[in-house]
Amino acid sequence: MTDSGESLTEEAVRRWGTAHPPRMAELMTGLVRHLHAFAREVDLTTDEWMTAMDWLTRTGRISDDKRQEFILASDVLGLSSLVVQLDQKSDERATPATVLGPFHIDGSPVVESGFDMSEGLSGTPLFIVGRVTDLYGRPVPSAVLDVWQADVDGAYESQLADIDEARLRAQYRAGADGKYCVRTIAPLGYTIPMDGPVGELISRTGISPYRPAHIHFLVDQPGYRRLVTHLFPAGTDHLDSDVVFGVKDALVTPFVEYQPGPGPDGTIMDRPFLVTHYDFVLAPASS
Amino acid sequence: MTDSGESLTEEAVRRWGTAHPPRMAELMTGLVRHLHAFAREVDLTTDEWMTAMDWLTRTGRISDDKRQEFILASDVLGLSSLVVQLDQKSDERATPATVLGPFHIDGSPVVESGFDMSEGLSGTPLFIVGRVTDLYGRPVPSAVLDVWQADVDGAYESQLADIDEARLRAQYRAGADGKYCVRTIAPLGYTIPMDGPVGELISRTGISPYRPAHIHFLVDQPGYRRLVTHLFPAGTDHLDSDVVFGVKDALVTPFVEYQPGPGPDGTIMDRPFLVTHYDFVLAPASS
Repeated sequence: MTDSGESLTEEAVRRWGTAHPPRMAELMTGLVRHLHAFAREVDLTTDEWMTAMDWLTRTGRISDDKRQEFILASDVLGLSSLVVQLDQKSDERATPATVLGPFHIDGSPVVESGFDMSEGLSGTPLFIVGRVTDLYGRPVPSAVLDVWQADVDGAYESQLADIDEARLRAQYRAGADGKYCVRTIAPLGYTIPMDGPVGELISRTGISPYRPAHIHFLVDQPGYRRLVTHLFPAGTDHLDSDVVFGVKDALVTPFVEYQPGPGPDGTIMDRPFLVTHYDFVLAPASS
Repeated sequence: MTDSGESLTEEAVRRWGTAHPPRMAELMTGLVRHLHAFAREVDLTTDEWMTAMDWLTRTGRISDDKRQEFILASDVLGLSSLVVQLDQKSDERATPATVLGPFHIDGSPVVESGFDMSEGLSGTPLFIVGRVTDLYGRPVPSAVLDVWQADVDGAYESQLADIDEARLRAQYRAGADGKYCVRTIAPLGYTIPMDGPVGELISRTGISPYRPAHIHFLVDQPGYRRLVTHLFPAGTDHLDSDVVFGVKDALVTPFVEYQPGPGPDGTIMDRPFLVTHYDFVLAPASS
């Protein structure tokens, strides 16, 4: 061979440069150049290429409406977190975004402030209370907080078969004063699903498969930038080694333990419970 | 944000550098660096990332034992052809390799020299005759030539439902003198499958979806480097714009028309037929 395929790469870039609209051409030519540069740099063999084709196919075939193995792959490669970072051009006063993760389910039930989305599942009761505000601390009335989390065994609803009702997920609407109150159970750390193609990859490394305990939030209100984020309890395990690169300092918040008595919304609690205060700060949509 | 995610990339490279064996670490860290560089260069948005996750999932889900949409994607991006080029370190005297393509089926029936693998399907009869040799023109006895092609409608067996017997595919064993004789029908050009996620992409470009007419060969014999290649009829359409970047000059060969009479193996042909002579030259396995 007279070259290492540079002329082939040029021709592929030329062809994909005809994609439309222009942004599509930019994406596809960038992809072709980086894919080819990767193959050339590592001197990819036919056997390795075939293994990759098989891995990609299995990753797609194990995915469905609930299991999103490609998102998980993107998460563990740090790509998801990078895209969040590139995409969040907002003011530094806004709450940082983090990865969506593979377990979000659309259309969770809309519930009242103070609703217990754990509905009798085992776990330590937890109240998350605070306000949704703009960059200047002014309330954002009626913002919707879409909240989801794993149970004490580390399982999200989307990982369980035969679930008829929403489980550990709900959409809370903040009040006119921006205040919200989520009632649930304390999250625990867990490992990402290790029974699929992504788990196979992780098991061939020294990477810890754990995520630190966290609760997911998707806060949305017209006129503001949609915020996809988590809250992590201060002091929990794995904060320094989150397998999906999701931890940001500003998202770590103390979960304070209280003895039986009135909760923050006045509910009388007959056993110890946790409370965390957190204000979500939204950037304007245009930023 | 204080950077464009460079520290995140460094951490991801550090983690995937723990993969074993060392080659796996080399592949994974290379992949992470190039994926991140791509995302950063094009400033990938969350919506674009989600579109890509969905495309990857659909590409996997449409694939099965017979349909290989990821191989097709790799083909149209020029990656497959690049890998072939990187992998073929053999002597320039050897027959060039080209892409495997998504339609190969393992385990085709082993047949005698001269067997008609088109078995009565419509098309112009074609004989492909020649020898399998080493770099010095010495016969490689008993090499197996695994041959497959599309029918006159451009369909491979793997694209048709409910096929019980091998269709336009067979494994021919060369003789002690290296000679082989394949009997089939003349291939025609066709478009790649346009009804899946790869077709969606192609339809958003000015790229021609055609492949020039060709027949696939996989020539294998212990002691020699496995050769995956095609033969293209000289003068056929689309040789300059093969959608999968598979054409190489040394693989284009004249298909010569003959009037009714004896074929190259002595068979009496009652209608016009084509003959092409082609010697496959194998490199030693160690090269």
